[in-house]
Amino acid sequence: MEAARARQSRLTKPAGSLGRLEDLSIRIAGMTGQLDPPLELAVVFTLAADHGVAEEGVSAYPADVTAQMVANFLRGGAAINVLAHVVGARVVVADLGVKSDLAQADGLVSRKIRPGTANITHGPAMTDQEAARAIEAGRELVRDQMTKGLDVAITGDMGIGNTTASAAIVCALTGLDPDGVVGRGTGVDDAGLERKRRAVRAALHVNSDAIARGPVETLAAVGGLEIAALAGVILESAQSRRPVIIDGFISGAAALVASRMAPASTDFMIASHRSHELGHAAVLEQLGLKPLLDLELRLGEGTGGALALPIVRASMRLLNDMATFEDAGVSDRA
Amino acid sequence: MEAARARQSRLTKPAGSLGRLEDLSIRIAGMTGQLDPPLELAVVFTLAADHGVAEEGVSAYPADVTAQMVANFLRGGAAINVLAHVVGARVVVADLGVKSDLAQADGLVSRKIRPGTANITHGPAMTDQEAARAIEAGRELVRDQMTKGLDVAITGDMGIGNTTASAAIVCALTGLDPDGVVGRGTGVDDAGLERKRRAVRAALHVNSDAIARGPVETLAAVGGLEIAALAGVILESAQSRRPVIIDGFISGAAALVASRMAPASTDFMIASHRSHELGHAAVLEQLGLKPLLDLELRLGEGTGGALALPIVRASMRLLNDMATFEDAGVSDRA
Repeated sequence: MEAARARQSRLTKPAGSLGRLEDLSIRIAGMTGQLDPPLELAVVFTLAADHGVAEEGVSAYPADVTAQMVANFLRGGAAINVLAHVVGARVVVADLGVKSDLAQADGLVSRKIRPGTANITHGPAMTDQEAARAIEAGRELVRDQMTKGLDVAITGDMGIGNTTASAAIVCALTGLDPDGVVGRGTGVDDAGLERKRRAVRAALHVNSDAIARGPVETLAAVGGLEIAALAGVILESAQSRRPVIIDGFISGAAALVASRMAPASTDFMIASHRSHELGHAAVLEQLGLKPLLDLELRLGEGTGGALALPIVRASMRLLNDMATFEDAGVSDRA
Repeated sequence: MEAARARQSRLTKPAGSLGRLEDLSIRIAGMTGQLDPPLELAVVFTLAADHGVAEEGVSAYPADVTAQMVANFLRGGAAINVLAHVVGARVVVADLGVKSDLAQADGLVSRKIRPGTANITHGPAMTDQEAARAIEAGRELVRDQMTKGLDVAITGDMGIGNTTASAAIVCALTGLDPDGVVGRGTGVDDAGLERKRRAVRAALHVNSDAIARGPVETLAAVGGLEIAALAGVILESAQSRRPVIIDGFISGAAALVASRMAPASTDFMIASHRSHELGHAAVLEQLGLKPLLDLELRLGEGTGGALALPIVRASMRLLNDMATFEDAGVSDRA
């Protein structure tokens, strides 16, 4: 980081004029221990699972959409496929807990822990063991991709009902009130929003003992299988000193779990964007991360993460490829 | 735009969940009259000129830096070269009025109207005829590049002293007070900031008759040669129905001039970023444009514009390449 900071000060530009790109390049140098780490091989981990809480009417879409969207990912028709192609990243689509049996489609990675979580308004989403297995599955996904080449990871999600589970995690881990965290997700109306708030309050109440025990227990109690696996993706990326670009609200909830399990993991996180979802700003504040983009996105899948990738790469090319004042014969300030 | 809006509503995502990317794609469809316009051939117009007002001590850097940075652009060592390479754009470097005679370097486009402007604190920067010629030179640059292929233009600038001239233009055209518009530019200290404010006040006072006559007269009175040419770049892009990505504060001042000369030109402008420079937010508000990025950049050259290009392209790929609910067999909301 010191070497990167020193080089930034010699590049042919007014000091500080590249703003947040300068800080980003210094952070990435610190994460990787390299002034010019490779960032070409980017992998979006789009992890899917269903949520028992969907039966509370917390989404504008039927729960079947989770499986339908997985099929859409595999055919390349979803937003994340388009964006990954634009920015040059590959998409890993994994089933951590979709309710229905998915056809064994080309490209689908099966890591189903269980066919969806239980309804968190009545009790725990899953057992602590299942949460631990889902986290480990996420870590394994990263290790698998490292054998194929992985310079930077991007988190992504799909799961009808998962903004409700994420809001419950965020409230449980931070003590924030659901009214300031629960948002409209896929776009529920006022009545739907009220159902979501009630569901989160009920989940926090019925699972309060588990929540008091720790982050993994909280994840098991009110979380989701894809959220747990995303926490694993983040932890493994951090442990291998690779930057991990965090997508929106669901990924943010996973990042919060990871940060409580291993505080140093936040040093490897890059917040891609501020989601339009109500509670996301609070998540970013808790993580101490400032997002690169603010485009009113609220889609998930890893879309915000993919959009931030060109900026992340650009920050390192600027650090390494610009001429210095000395090289270029440009006068520095007096 | 109607066809683009209708298609956005059928794509496999919750309505509105791609936020500002949806609006952007609809605007670009309107600009080009095409649902899927080409956006591959992008050209950054990095236009350079010197400013007589630099002798008032308004910059942290000596005036020689304008010519030195032109040489740096031509050797590929500046931030805009690096970013253009990253995003896939070509850079056109043109001399509209650098003070010194520049060596006839490979790649430099010579359109020198005069060797720098006069000091605007004492009188007009240039004659109305010179301003008109600089605008026309900018238009010609675009037409020249169209023969080589130009789908989208990006504005950029280099000129020691040009945040002072830009602030004077903005104050003159909007009536805003210099205290809310004049910023630190390359990074002047408090004394330098006070000199800039005084210079802008003096320029507005001594040139008040010209300012009252209209936007071109204002440009001639308190503007700059590269700023005038950038207004031409914007006007020609708009007239040819091509999107033009506007960089930061100096480009914003040029865009403001263009918008006053031809109000419909704003329909073709895409604001790339909100610069860290104090007055830029006011410029964007005057133009009615919302920036895509906010990364605390304050470098100019077209750097913010280049960084926004991947987002601009992504918006159109999403519109055109995503599957619809019907195609993908995904259930839409009830």
